[in-house]
Amino acid sequence: MPDRDNRQWILLRRPKGQLAESDFELRRGPVPQPGPGEVLTRTIYISVDAANRAWMSPVRTYIDPVEPGSVMRSMTLGEVVRSGDPSLRPGDLVEGMAGWQDFAVEPAPRLHRVEPRKPLSLILSGVGVTSLTAYFGLLEVGRPRPGETVLVSAAAGAVGSVAGQIAKIQGCRAVGLAGTDEKCRWLTHTLGFDGAINYKIADLPRALRDACPGGVDLYFDNVGGGILEAVLFQMRERGRVVCCGAVSQYDTGNPEPGPRGVPGLLVVKRLRMEGFIAMDFYARRREAEEALARWIAESRLRIREDIVDGLEGAPRALIGLLGGDNVGKRLVRVAPEPA
Amino acid sequence: MPDRDNRQWILLRRPKGQLAESDFELRRGPVPQPGPGEVLTRTIYISVDAANRAWMSPVRTYIDPVEPGSVMRSMTLGEVVRSGDPSLRPGDLVEGMAGWQDFAVEPAPRLHRVEPRKPLSLILSGVGVTSLTAYFGLLEVGRPRPGETVLVSAAAGAVGSVAGQIAKIQGCRAVGLAGTDEKCRWLTHTLGFDGAINYKIADLPRALRDACPGGVDLYFDNVGGGILEAVLFQMRERGRVVCCGAVSQYDTGNPEPGPRGVPGLLVVKRLRMEGFIAMDFYARRREAEEALARWIAESRLRIREDIVDGLEGAPRALIGLLGGDNVGKRLVRVAPEPA
Repeated sequence: MPDRDNRQWILLRRPKGQLAESDFELRRGPVPQPGPGEVLTRTIYISVDAANRAWMSPVRTYIDPVEPGSVMRSMTLGEVVRSGDPSLRPGDLVEGMAGWQDFAVEPAPRLHRVEPRKPLSLILSGVGVTSLTAYFGLLEVGRPRPGETVLVSAAAGAVGSVAGQIAKIQGCRAVGLAGTDEKCRWLTHTLGFDGAINYKIADLPRALRDACPGGVDLYFDNVGGGILEAVLFQMRERGRVVCCGAVSQYDTGNPEPGPRGVPGLLVVKRLRMEGFIAMDFYARRREAEEALARWIAESRLRIREDIVDGLEGAPRALIGLLGGDNVGKRLVRVAPEPA
Repeated sequence: MPDRDNRQWILLRRPKGQLAESDFELRRGPVPQPGPGEVLTRTIYISVDAANRAWMSPVRTYIDPVEPGSVMRSMTLGEVVRSGDPSLRPGDLVEGMAGWQDFAVEPAPRLHRVEPRKPLSLILSGVGVTSLTAYFGLLEVGRPRPGETVLVSAAAGAVGSVAGQIAKIQGCRAVGLAGTDEKCRWLTHTLGFDGAINYKIADLPRALRDACPGGVDLYFDNVGGGILEAVLFQMRERGRVVCCGAVSQYDTGNPEPGPRGVPGLLVVKRLRMEGFIAMDFYARRREAEEALARWIAESRLRIREDIVDGLEGAPRALIGLLGGDNVGKRLVRVAPEPA
């Protein structure tokens, strides 16, 4: 009976440099019980996101860092098993931050009740936080206009693949940066990107000039580092850089210096660089989810899921994602979807 | 008779590294004559601006670079001597880009007719491009709210001193960065800044924390480089960095790498960095000039002029400004103000 056994991936230490499986330990313990106002959930899916790595650094980001000795944090989709709060009932589906474990007890206000979708994984993929990040970042921070050239880095990832497709839906030209030729083909052949650049083999300044002959109007940046620097030199006047993440700098003990051209190019080209977090826009979450679901239903937005089976694979799933081995939205399936 | 002799400072070569007087040569030639549609002006004041140095670099900024062999470019206030265009008459005052010379011929559309002020220098100082830069940058790009902490670099310069005072007029706390204790005293004692930091002697992160205990809401940046990097770490969530210039990087052959924290801190703190040029806002120039003139008349905005006498001193005036030896708005007086 699974209620007797809760597997938990514990973060043992703050990784120095690249994350390793040995930074985690799988422990087993009893399933916790909810007190008043608390809820016990069974994890169905874990969302694997580059941000998970950023949360391990000792510096506070937009949330407190994950402390060594505690369960590794992640977004999750779960099912309520027992509830000590009238707002949630057994069988309800909830989004939360249960992290890398089979069962979790959390205060009810930290859980977000969601409607079922088919498949359930769509709650974390197609209309989940990564798609919402692409939606709000591109539309609200980047404010694309039809005909503009939109460049997206980590374009084969969960956020980038959706950002580029939304750019197309807005009537923009979309160009993606990805780390393999196969990913590039997927972007142009399947997702309808107008161009794709394998940044690992290309002469990047030249490839950017070829793919974006008039320059880049809007750069949706997931990676930071040297790619951001190269793109800044290809921005058009009054261009915008949507700062969504800096995954090139998360999994290293030796981050690069900042991009040359900051702030000089910002002045002479009148560029705007702006960072954001999808949560800042959650007052409008329903509107975004509806738009995303409609585009998916109309086949205008394609969602690719990259599902790893079994909680035991969570560290490898994250380490691989940081190395770029995923295509689309990576999830760990911890328990089968309820019937 | 001055009409027979036109002194011109010629840029001999693109400076490698720090600008030197030997990069210029003073030549004498005949006074040019205007053709149809052209206007001959006599230069009264030259505006000495850090941007002049940026225009010497081979890379196009927002205007074409100054070519070696040509007259050094600068903004000027002049008086029309002869006109081949019906829109301007002898005696009219005009703002233009006559550069470092006694006389210049320019097409009439490149000249901007201005009303006399007392003293005339106010046209280039109090209501001139540097004050307009401070006005539009702070208000339109930075959008300060009362009670916010506004930090200004190169705060004893023409742009910075006005930006900080406008921040005070908007009900903000203003803190300035400057390179001498004397400048710092001027900022706090005379201009009413709430704090000032001598960045050359201070432990900058600590001094910033002391002067801006809750963090910086709005950073009006004229310098770029290591100071920008240090300030980024002290920005509050949803802070704004107004990128006005990068004077620390103009007069060197060896620019610093970009600031660490870009783009990571932009994401986690949701910062906006935005570059601008005052000219972009010139459709609203009259409104800004009126506001500036009113604040000056009400003694709410103090303008300090730093006037160097004689065209022969122009190179020294610019070199000194790049080294930070000016306080307030530096001008070169080329000819006496007309009666």
